[in-house]
Amino acid sequence: MIRRLGVDVGGTKCLGVLVDADGRVIRDVRVRTPPDVTGLIDTIAEVVERLGGGDSLGVGLPGLVDAGGVLRAAPNLAGVAEFPARALLEQRLGMAVAVDNDATCATLAEWSLGAGRGVDDLVLVTLGTGIGGGLVAGGRVRRGAHGMAGEIGHMVVEREGRPCRCGHRGCWERYASGSALGDHSRALTGTHRPGEEVIAAARRLDAWALEVVEVFVGWVALGLANLANVLDPARFVIGGGLADSGDVVLAGIRDAYARALYSAEHRPLAEIVMASLGPEAGAVGAALLGAEVS
Amino acid sequence: MIRRLGVDVGGTKCLGVLVDADGRVIRDVRVRTPPDVTGLIDTIAEVVERLGGGDSLGVGLPGLVDAGGVLRAAPNLAGVAEFPARALLEQRLGMAVAVDNDATCATLAEWSLGAGRGVDDLVLVTLGTGIGGGLVAGGRVRRGAHGMAGEIGHMVVEREGRPCRCGHRGCWERYASGSALGDHSRALTGTHRPGEEVIAAARRLDAWALEVVEVFVGWVALGLANLANVLDPARFVIGGGLADSGDVVLAGIRDAYARALYSAEHRPLAEIVMASLGPEAGAVGAALLGAEVS
Repeated sequence: MIRRLGVDVGGTKCLGVLVDADGRVIRDVRVRTPPDVTGLIDTIAEVVERLGGGDSLGVGLPGLVDAGGVLRAAPNLAGVAEFPARALLEQRLGMAVAVDNDATCATLAEWSLGAGRGVDDLVLVTLGTGIGGGLVAGGRVRRGAHGMAGEIGHMVVEREGRPCRCGHRGCWERYASGSALGDHSRALTGTHRPGEEVIAAARRLDAWALEVVEVFVGWVALGLANLANVLDPARFVIGGGLADSGDVVLAGIRDAYARALYSAEHRPLAEIVMASLGPEAGAVGAALLGAEVS
Repeated sequence: MIRRLGVDVGGTKCLGVLVDADGRVIRDVRVRTPPDVTGLIDTIAEVVERLGGGDSLGVGLPGLVDAGGVLRAAPNLAGVAEFPARALLEQRLGMAVAVDNDATCATLAEWSLGAGRGVDDLVLVTLGTGIGGGLVAGGRVRRGAHGMAGEIGHMVVEREGRPCRCGHRGCWERYASGSALGDHSRALTGTHRPGEEVIAAARRLDAWALEVVEVFVGWVALGLANLANVLDPARFVIGGGLADSGDVVLAGIRDAYARALYSAEHRPLAEIVMASLGPEAGAVGAALLGAEVS
């Protein structure tokens, strides 16, 4: 059996998987993401070793990855810029390595194996600390001209809005990410609660939490409508840290989406579904990508 | 020679062209768009006749056109909804007819023959009464899952912003279209001047007009940056009524774009150029499209 490995580098941990020919996870490994980027190659090599080595490797990175496998910028990895990840990994491991944006990896996984199966045009939206995204159009994952498509979280939806860590204001992820859900709780109730706590309270039908969720789903839907106006996908797949809160947010998102979309009454509405592969989607997608280049 | 015809239906006039095998316009005809949609098939038939008949026909329509050639909605054509344009035209003319969104037609023309040549990923942006758009990704015109991609003018950039004729608020076209340029003149100077008058005054370096243009180009750039964050095109082509004001707006748009883009210092910037085929781009693109289906 060909040993396909995938590693998803997150802001706090690196998740490595060994998958079978159908993309099922056979083994996984978690290690801390090193505080200093110079340690990242060592860390990935360690993950590969702990997985027992592999014939192919794909790596998902949380930032702008160009077509040459250079991590150009990564706001959630301290001090990373212009980091030639692919070249360094290939040199270190002595094999071809695929390197791509983490949300692009997750998109490939959900599209091939998960909630995105069966359509040729979809947008994956990961709602976590920020918002990531990946595009499938005309039956292929699309990366744009320079490999940097899908930075949907930095679409500005409120020009003079909340400041974003990217240096601009009013980015969608300031209103519709998992952490923004916490921010809405502070704005509406005076007390900041983490996103998961808001979801749990809404599940118990606490009135304050339902109100926070209502504001939140309106912002999520606004961005989805923007994306549909531009791309007209058949389906949105919502992943990231909020992927398991579909019971709380999905009906509200669908409702608000139908109200926010341009000329909604004259067009088929995109399906909106939750991702199905869980937090391993990025690593699995990286493994799929690695198998393509090996 | 195969006689390729294209017709671009606008809110006030229909422009018909006969093009040669290279897409050059050999003959053109202009007639008024009928006030009532029931007259539209007659009008297009008249254009075809006045062009001397054709072997293929493509028609660009100003609204949401689905994959079956039904004009689902057209905010600038009074009372139009669910109008089966392709079926009616084929029945009337006894030939295969291609029907598509007008900006998609213009995209095909500019990409094949105009300012969009040579790249595989571009976005056409038409700044006129509203904002239209068309997408090329991975070397093909992209229409989305239902034929309705490219409605970029209705991307919301200011959630509680200016009301739009589409029924929502804060659509990009309320800030960055040709008519929005006029609106900015009123907001800044107290007097409404049409967009062309603002451009002419800016060309004379009138201070008030330069100020209006500065506000305007900031809004144009904000939307382009949003699109680049999502799509990462190699080039933007700006057409529509403002296509001949590149000398006044282009430097400002490029400047503001580089400031508005996410992580601009770590990525190649898309080129931003003006369209080169003039007001006939939509009709020429329709003719190209018609030649494909005949």
